[in-house]
Amino acid sequence: MKSLTVLKIGGNVIDCQHVLEGVLRDFATWQGAKILVHGGGKVANKLMTQLGIEPKMVDGRRITDRETLDIVTMVYGGLINKNIVATLQSNSCNAIGLTGADANVIPATKRQVKNVDYGYVGDLKQDCISSDTIAGFLETGLVPVIAPITHDSAGTLLNTNADTIASSVAVAMSKTFKVFLVYCFEKKGVLRNPADDNSVIDFLDEILYNQYKNEGIITAGMIPKLDNAFEALHSGVYEVIKCCPGGFKEGTRIVVSE
Amino acid sequence: MKSLTVLKIGGNVIDCQHVLEGVLRDFATWQGAKILVHGGGKVANKLMTQLGIEPKMVDGRRITDRETLDIVTMVYGGLINKNIVATLQSNSCNAIGLTGADANVIPATKRQVKNVDYGYVGDLKQDCISSDTIAGFLETGLVPVIAPITHDSAGTLLNTNADTIASSVAVAMSKTFKVFLVYCFEKKGVLRNPADDNSVIDFLDEILYNQYKNEGIITAGMIPKLDNAFEALHSGVYEVIKCCPGGFKEGTRIVVSE
Repeated sequence: MKSLTVLKIGGNVIDCQHVLEGVLRDFATWQGAKILVHGGGKVANKLMTQLGIEPKMVDGRRITDRETLDIVTMVYGGLINKNIVATLQSNSCNAIGLTGADANVIPATKRQVKNVDYGYVGDLKQDCISSDTIAGFLETGLVPVIAPITHDSAGTLLNTNADTIASSVAVAMSKTFKVFLVYCFEKKGVLRNPADDNSVIDFLDEILYNQYKNEGIITAGMIPKLDNAFEALHSGVYEVIKCCPGGFKEGTRIVVSE
Repeated sequence: MKSLTVLKIGGNVIDCQHVLEGVLRDFATWQGAKILVHGGGKVANKLMTQLGIEPKMVDGRRITDRETLDIVTMVYGGLINKNIVATLQSNSCNAIGLTGADANVIPATKRQVKNVDYGYVGDLKQDCISSDTIAGFLETGLVPVIAPITHDSAGTLLNTNADTIASSVAVAMSKTFKVFLVYCFEKKGVLRNPADDNSVIDFLDEILYNQYKNEGIITAGMIPKLDNAFEALHSGVYEVIKCCPGGFKEGTRIVVSE
């Protein structure tokens, strides 16, 4: 089985031009099939402020109204995505920028209104990723760069969580690839001591994870992220890696117990 | 030889939501291989005004400075391109949005500074279009939707004329396809009498073109457009059609003389 690396980068990378360029230069050198999934960053908020659009929040969560959807489509699908693609191209990496609407790679459903109407937010159904189409791009040597925008197949774009896209794409591709899912975030990895940036746990399986949780070493903030990592592993992903920009080899490698 | 239709739509279509939806619904039903190339429209200007960015003009031509480049990347490459793709998907047309940077389909060169520095504007060299890559998309049933943004292969995006992209793509694809290049514009076709919208010239070859020019029937405004059309035809395009939205069958068909 061929290997595939899915790299997720978030706002901490995107918001700092030289960090972003470093990550992309590094990513461009990685051998084998690869996919980049990017999040948003502060540019969308900045643009909203400049345009006098008030961010609508409920319980600390963003509501994507029509105006906000247009902003994120412009910023995530246009500005960020196309600049990443151009930078990768300049590093001899044949990138192709995609939203979920392009080639219908990620059809989604508008989040149902329960207590809160989140607006134009997309949720991913199981098995919704068009893995054959993505595999087709990979076979021709293309490197998909996926923006956190999907569509409802009825003509409407949807704002979608980039972590969810990354893990769903990784799971979907694991049918035909040995998938490494790399989350590039603000820490060097999962830390033993949140106050010590160098206390990276280099290896984690469920036995160790449960042990560290019981011992109070891994606490609140990291637990949902690691639960998601193990969920991806149980759904077919071979290894999840959490690392900082440029620290791919020094991050935390997460696998299922033997 | 298989047929390929390249449809160019400009601001007159994009600025009017119901006209755009009608054109896309129509385009979605066209049989065979097809490509859509879109221009800009007023959204970019509107956004610039909202952000207090002054359009910079020299001799009536737009200068694309860094701020303007970011705006057109957002609006053309993001908002317009992705909404067109989502609308085509909702019409069962498997669209994929591309700038020239994506899959390196259109590498360009930044316009050289002679008397005027036009800024981040891309000019297309002969044979620069990656026709094999585009043909690969068409073979898998994808419908490329191309935004008027290219790149310089050194990491910088470039604002590029959509008419030029449309004719260059049409010419490049004519090596392997019988190409119909359709310009959807504000008139029903080339008119005998500019004051009479129904005076469409239904057929035009160079003999007729020269005759109409000599007779003063075809004048100033249309001449550069028609010269470009004949240039495309002499470079391999099979037929150029000029028509209004929804009037594909009633437009002016332009061909080289037998």
